[in-house]
Amino acid sequence: MSKLNVTQKLIGEHLLHGEMVPGKEIGIRIDQALLQDATGTLVQLELEAMGLKKAKTEVAVQYVDHNLLQTDNKNADDHSFLLSASQRFGLWYSRPGNGVSHPVHMERFGKPGKTLVGSDSHTCAAGSLGMLAIGTGGLDVAAAIAGQPYFVKMPKVMGVKLIGKLPDWVSAKDVILEMLRRHDVKGGVGKIIEYYGDGLKHLSAMDRHVIANMGAELGATTTVFPSDDETKRFLKSQDREKDWVELVADEGCEYDFHEEIILDELVPLIALPTSPGNVVPVTEVAGRAIGQVVIGSSANPGLRDFWIAAAIVRGRSINSGVSFDINPTSRQIIQNMINNRAFADLIKAGGRFHQSGCMGCIGMGQAPATNTISLRTMPRNFPSRSGTEDDQVYLCSPETAAASALTGKITDPRDLESLFTMSYPKYENPDMEIINTDMLVAPPEDGSKIEIVKGPNIKTLPIIEPLSDSYKVPVLLKMGDNISTDEILKAGADVLPLRSNLPEISKYSYTVIDDSFYDRAMEAKSKYGGHVVVAGQNYAQGSSREHAALAPKYLGQVAVIAGSYARIAWQNLVNFGIIPLEFIDLEDYKEIEQGDIVSFDNLIEDIRNGNPISVNVSKASGKKLTFDTKHSLSDRQIDVLLKGGIINEFKSRIS
Amino acid sequence: MSKLNVTQKLIGEHLLHGEMVPGKEIGIRIDQALLQDATGTLVQLELEAMGLKKAKTEVAVQYVDHNLLQTDNKNADDHSFLLSASQRFGLWYSRPGNGVSHPVHMERFGKPGKTLVGSDSHTCAAGSLGMLAIGTGGLDVAAAIAGQPYFVKMPKVMGVKLIGKLPDWVSAKDVILEMLRRHDVKGGVGKIIEYYGDGLKHLSAMDRHVIANMGAELGATTTVFPSDDETKRFLKSQDREKDWVELVADEGCEYDFHEEIILDELVPLIALPTSPGNVVPVTEVAGRAIGQVVIGSSANPGLRDFWIAAAIVRGRSINSGVSFDINPTSRQIIQNMINNRAFADLIKAGGRFHQSGCMGCIGMGQAPATNTISLRTMPRNFPSRSGTEDDQVYLCSPETAAASALTGKITDPRDLESLFTMSYPKYENPDMEIINTDMLVAPPEDGSKIEIVKGPNIKTLPIIEPLSDSYKVPVLLKMGDNISTDEILKAGADVLPLRSNLPEISKYSYTVIDDSFYDRAMEAKSKYGGHVVVAGQNYAQGSSREHAALAPKYLGQVAVIAGSYARIAWQNLVNFGIIPLEFIDLEDYKEIEQGDIVSFDNLIEDIRNGNPISVNVSKASGKKLTFDTKHSLSDRQIDVLLKGGIINEFKSRIS
Repeated sequence: MSKLNVTQKLIGEHLLHGEMVPGKEIGIRIDQALLQDATGTLVQLELEAMGLKKAKTEVAVQYVDHNLLQTDNKNADDHSFLLSASQRFGLWYSRPGNGVSHPVHMERFGKPGKTLVGSDSHTCAAGSLGMLAIGTGGLDVAAAIAGQPYFVKMPKVMGVKLIGKLPDWVSAKDVILEMLRRHDVKGGVGKIIEYYGDGLKHLSAMDRHVIANMGAELGATTTVFPSDDETKRFLKSQDREKDWVELVADEGCEYDFHEEIILDELVPLIALPTSPGNVVPVTEVAGRAIGQVVIGSSANPGLRDFWIAAAIVRGRSINSGVSFDINPTSRQIIQNMINNRAFADLIKAGGRFHQSGCMGCIGMGQAPATNTISLRTMPRNFPSRSGTEDDQVYLCSPETAAASALTGKITDPRDLESLFTMSYPKYENPDMEIINTDMLVAPPEDGSKIEIVKGPNIKTLPIIEPLSDSYKVPVLLKMGDNISTDEILKAGADVLPLRSNLPEISKYSYTVIDDSFYDRAMEAKSKYGGHVVVAGQNYAQGSSREHAALAPKYLGQVAVIAGSYARIAWQNLVNFGIIPLEFIDLEDYKEIEQGDIVSFDNLIEDIRNGNPISVNVSKASGKKLTFDTKHSLSDRQIDVLLKGGIINEFKSRIS
Repeated sequence: MSKLNVTQKLIGEHLLHGEMVPGKEIGIRIDQALLQDATGTLVQLELEAMGLKKAKTEVAVQYVDHNLLQTDNKNADDHSFLLSASQRFGLWYSRPGNGVSHPVHMERFGKPGKTLVGSDSHTCAAGSLGMLAIGTGGLDVAAAIAGQPYFVKMPKVMGVKLIGKLPDWVSAKDVILEMLRRHDVKGGVGKIIEYYGDGLKHLSAMDRHVIANMGAELGATTTVFPSDDETKRFLKSQDREKDWVELVADEGCEYDFHEEIILDELVPLIALPTSPGNVVPVTEVAGRAIGQVVIGSSANPGLRDFWIAAAIVRGRSINSGVSFDINPTSRQIIQNMINNRAFADLIKAGGRFHQSGCMGCIGMGQAPATNTISLRTMPRNFPSRSGTEDDQVYLCSPETAAASALTGKITDPRDLESLFTMSYPKYENPDMEIINTDMLVAPPEDGSKIEIVKGPNIKTLPIIEPLSDSYKVPVLLKMGDNISTDEILKAGADVLPLRSNLPEISKYSYTVIDDSFYDRAMEAKSKYGGHVVVAGQNYAQGSSREHAALAPKYLGQVAVIAGSYARIAWQNLVNFGIIPLEFIDLEDYKEIEQGDIVSFDNLIEDIRNGNPISVNVSKASGKKLTFDTKHSLSDRQIDVLLKGGIINEFKSRIS
């Protein structure tokens, strides 16, 4: 394997455990970490619970971009908490409104050749700079900040050769939409997508960001671009030329999968509700009336993306039926937009400017009206994600979005040539952008004396006890197949603000299935010291939300007994000290019932030795039965589980 | 009365009923009307219920500035509704994010010599242009739009003579804070405040707006300024010189009360939590640590107000403990701020820019963190109005706010001279401002064919039946003294979004007192056709919220029997067809109980003739008693009541 692709070079230089064989677990050294506020509050509480002295990564940054709508004390209190915790644990703090994490990180901290983990699924956007950047669960990020390797199964690499040059009115968003059209939302699962080819020379670093960002929508582990002259130009424009290193694939290197896109042949594309994979040419849906256009987000964050929208609407006025919402990426981008007139042009034409942040992309503002098409340059259009039930969100390029804002209906931007005798505005990257670092608070040399500020809604994590050798606890709930994390812990506006308040958020455990669960669990905790739940196949599918393990644990959950588990949630259970048991014989699933009392004995030895785990069941009828279950844990995971989770495991090693 | 003050001239020229004798009811012709979205949705439903063909005022404008945080469909649906209803009924529509109603109205529509009513308590701000501008309940505004006179008791006039010139670092906000320091929040009740004197020539039209706006905090009916050369200059800068007319007090005119402010002697002032009347010099509280500064709102909306803040922070960076929130007044102001560099300077120094609107002033965003002082240029700091429980909101000038943002503690702006060797930046009003009318949608010539768009949360008002001659209904609730409108209809984030959905909002009637009320009322409605409630003195004090009458009416409320009534709520009851009966002998209040059945006979004739209204009470014990009550209604009000409210009364006249 002397000829390496960029992915192999990145992984190879950071490999601490395992071999680069697809499917095998590898452990890699992490150079940088990124947190945002929605997930970061819990990560910071985890760092506190671990007793971390100071971040061990080269750079770790806490961004605040998700929860910027302050309608009560909670979000503002979170901001105070995150600032103080960042100072204590040695993280940079990007103040609220400073901007969306991914583009700000790319502009200010990203470095070719480095690894990054982030507690946000679009962390992969930093692949645009020649980084290996992976979005993952909060506890993985906490562990990385504490100096631990990041463990992942070595993915296969899909090489995507870009050929030629994009036509007028077609831009980077259309490239990733084309990938989604071809591969849909699961086409990238288990893969890293690596772009190469001559077509790259016409794609700026921010264009690459657009493509890398929405690699998340393909389900890919991450996306990787080389670090080339364009990467250098970009870093220079950010006054960071010194951070550039070249990183390109060896000639003749191999990829596990092959794909090719002839850029010249692309047309404006659009993703229909309610999946980023529902991609069709804009022409197929042109003419549908729209009520909203949103420009911005991490999927079109660049100065060019705003400039092109501004150039299209310049001197015109947007359609009176359209709310034209501009979501600027960052304060720095706003300053540059003022400088290049895009800001004034957008305002003049009718833009509603919002503060820099994630906004409607995560349902925090600008929810569309009922029965109205909303056209967005954002990365996702899952049902109701905008905040409106039965929403109709379409995803497209800034060109398509701006053209449609002018006409009030979905419009192929190429039609602007005939509609307004407009020729495609040509953007020139500035040699130097205005740079603004005033809202980035550096960590102090020694933060050990910093007091962590906790508002009334922020509660220190409880200590989880190591696993006991025996339990006798009730089956509190028996569930079917494909139970989602949303059913385990309710999502939504009532619950999200409680993310830093485990005692409160735990009250929403399993309420979607059974709203008596919390009361019954508290009773079982006091009477039996805990409980188990039973489920069918694919338990805890859906989001990577750690609360779906942490909240049940807080209520005393000892084990789940299920047919099978979704991957991330299975890891989360172990990380928080819940035993993920698997039925050996699915007939046993039929026998066990809610209300049964189960007992386990000799648990520690059986788990450690990989023995079958005996479940002894006593039914209310007096009937008793016993069956065997198993687990699929690695030795590392067994160690974590027995210690009561990864926080305890970490503490045991540093103490 | 040959020598008239400005107030008398304005009223005299619009007088349709009554005489200008303080305390006597007058009816005046209304030239202009202003709605905002929080109150305007109901007004538009009222216009619909009235069957209005087309607005009869010279100008009526629907603004959208309160509910701009779109976290679900409701606010966006309201926007669609308000646009379509405005088109139907002949109102201008100022699109969401176009700006705060009061300054936008002043810039684009306000005219010296005209009268204006608005469904917003700060409508009085337009007094800055030499208008008679009064904030009032929604139905009064609906009636004005339908061409009816506005009825009010002729207030007394307080003449405030302004002498000299404001010192450096002291601005218009300090003038109105001085008035509040002297007269507190009830000092203006029943009065119109008229400013005059040589000091006026140094106060720009927007400075006058600051003073007129917060006249609402004095409790004044309104505030009036003359229309002079400065008014002309302002209108000229808005390309509206043709709308100027001179309107000044006659030399030697009289005022009912006299006040005098020597501007040269003023110092920077600040209102402490939790009342705009808690005013002290800034020096008294200087040094207290702050967590937030907010610049903007209708109480400091002008280009100068942002410019001075920008000039103070220019080239500096705000304190890292302070969230520096900039709430731009309007899109037009943003364009002018870009033009005069204030926008870039504020962003550069660390400002978080928000969309144009009312924002934190009405608790829609930027709620401060727990236990944190928030310094705001806004008009009000009532408890929890910011959205945070037990908040600590201080009100001050932009100078004080910006100085404090730099230091992180409350700072007298005069100290900037020594702290930063800064001299007071001198603002020059531009001859011509950038003007932006793109987001003002004009009404069509004929809107009769426009379909009104109603989202699922917007419900047409039900038809209220005329009063019957007899009722036999239960007493559903017996309350004590000083029951507030908040107790009659719960305020807050759960309830406000239901303002256009009477069936839903009615479910919150009296829930603060008795959460079984709704169910019992629905039962009584179906069994008896309605109910009455009993209260002590000062029933329905507090806000002017019409829902506190409309919702109980929807649940079948026939009458309230109380010791006495708060003024606005008393009028609201009549406007929605509920009889406001008064005990003649308060001993009867002691006798009547919840659960009693009361019957009324010969009601129509007795009400019309001013006879005592007999209340026949049957108790569950079988005991019966009868007592007399009275009403204090004018002939006009009796007519309204018998017809089932003002909407029916209006329809009876136009049909």
